[in-house]
Amino acid sequence: MRNLKYAVIGSGAIGGFYGGKLANAGHDVHFLFHKDYEHAAKNGLCVDSVNGNFNILPINAYRSTTNMPPCDVILVCLKTTQNHILPDLLQPIIKAGTCIIMIQNGLGMESDLSTYFPDNGIVGAMAFICSNKIGPGHINHLDYGALTIANFRNTSSGQMEEVAHDFISAGVPVRIADSLLTARWRKLVWNIPYNGLSVVLHSQTDKLNAQPNTRQLLTDLMSEVIDAANACGANIPVSFASEMIKSTDSMKPYSPSMLLDYERQQQMEIQYMYSNPIRSAAEYGFIMKKTEVLEQQLRYINEEKILK
Amino acid sequence: MRNLKYAVIGSGAIGGFYGGKLANAGHDVHFLFHKDYEHAAKNGLCVDSVNGNFNILPINAYRSTTNMPPCDVILVCLKTTQNHILPDLLQPIIKAGTCIIMIQNGLGMESDLSTYFPDNGIVGAMAFICSNKIGPGHINHLDYGALTIANFRNTSSGQMEEVAHDFISAGVPVRIADSLLTARWRKLVWNIPYNGLSVVLHSQTDKLNAQPNTRQLLTDLMSEVIDAANACGANIPVSFASEMIKSTDSMKPYSPSMLLDYERQQQMEIQYMYSNPIRSAAEYGFIMKKTEVLEQQLRYINEEKILK
Repeated sequence: MRNLKYAVIGSGAIGGFYGGKLANAGHDVHFLFHKDYEHAAKNGLCVDSVNGNFNILPINAYRSTTNMPPCDVILVCLKTTQNHILPDLLQPIIKAGTCIIMIQNGLGMESDLSTYFPDNGIVGAMAFICSNKIGPGHINHLDYGALTIANFRNTSSGQMEEVAHDFISAGVPVRIADSLLTARWRKLVWNIPYNGLSVVLHSQTDKLNAQPNTRQLLTDLMSEVIDAANACGANIPVSFASEMIKSTDSMKPYSPSMLLDYERQQQMEIQYMYSNPIRSAAEYGFIMKKTEVLEQQLRYINEEKILK
Repeated sequence: MRNLKYAVIGSGAIGGFYGGKLANAGHDVHFLFHKDYEHAAKNGLCVDSVNGNFNILPINAYRSTTNMPPCDVILVCLKTTQNHILPDLLQPIIKAGTCIIMIQNGLGMESDLSTYFPDNGIVGAMAFICSNKIGPGHINHLDYGALTIANFRNTSSGQMEEVAHDFISAGVPVRIADSLLTARWRKLVWNIPYNGLSVVLHSQTDKLNAQPNTRQLLTDLMSEVIDAANACGANIPVSFASEMIKSTDSMKPYSPSMLLDYERQQQMEIQYMYSNPIRSAAEYGFIMKKTEVLEQQLRYINEEKILK
């Protein structure tokens, strides 16, 4: 078995952690940085993790993909608000047989990218992790960390399994799911209620769970997402809503990624996390009425409080 | 025709204006004040109005209804968050033939009060007015001012018409509506979207109208309220939503009353303005899904940011 060469596109809370775990286990990993390039090239990538801190130094750090080698596996870890730059950004590091793994939240990212790279394997990945970037090249991993991956378009034979093996031996639990559709929607069952409400109500997960009205609203929104998912052909049991609420009860108080984006005055991932699921469900005749309210409130906040 | 004796229960933005207009026209009006009693008893009631400023001094001011005379007409102008005190509060000033006029927003106020005063006439009144209390006994009337009134339970013969005549001759346009149900719901078509969204998004009417996403959300919410109203037996045309949006376009930037309550850290009128309409529609089989989202968000804000 050859050794896979990895590219990490976006070395923040997600890319820094997952790429860092692979590099820390001895894999050949090439990191694309943006603002943090100078700092990371000099000081490496520093991961404070509940499972043990580590530092990647020396590091294969780049400020542009044009200087990076073509890779066997590309981990796309940008915010989906940047996905419009992916076709140009990935071109220099794609080769025949390159597999693109999109560790992002939302719906439809794989489909959008697939038209640009019709001959490459594309995999969707769902990260179940609490991690934040707390400084340049500095990641704080608070809890969890498992990946669920699923094929969007078939990769070269055995390649997804090889990646899964690399992650698992590097200490990252990986589950291979049969249906990307179901896996993406399952993640949305959590993401849609908690991300949106945390921004609109300026509150972390624990407060939203604790108050009876928002606990009910979270449950209602989750039920709507499950109904929408199943209308689109996914297979998620109704009981998954109460499971998600209860599992969030046992989490430490947490700021969902969209609340962090809002607090940092960064664009929020509304298109892939809200608009695409709403549109997708509507195509199957299901109107996500409650989710639409959140989407419109978030678009207002994004325009009035972030873009202005 | 005898002269009617009026009681004004709650002499703030609404009671101060409407009671003030009657007193200014020479009617016998008795004002209940709460915190502002001392100031008002000494300095009178001061109304700055787009239609001409006036001052009521001397004034029949009271700090308790136990000192007030029984009246022919009681104008209930409290926030509905205070309606639980009405049975005790009104007892001393009620007599046979007293008509209670509830100038409040929401649904179900008349029904709740009627059980306590089964022999009195009860009238609902909808105020279409922009007015604020800007100091003790000091009202600022910015725009509009018409009342729509409708019987909940029949008053003594001709009494509602006599009240309407008093208001009209005092410079307040009054329309007598056939259906209180329809009139209450028509008011909710404006109140539900603008009050709730202005609080959740910390924005005045002009910004909510100007931004395409909230303009659509306002329209969606209005359409839902109209559908709910008609399910309950009201008769409101679908086109009323776009009429309300356009008429708000022509208003000056305005803070709905609930936004003012929120900014003053006062309890918001969620029960009568949101929960009762939602429950009422549900009894007729119509689920107000979008309005439910607002209701739950507002209850969270009320508990977390106001009551705490």
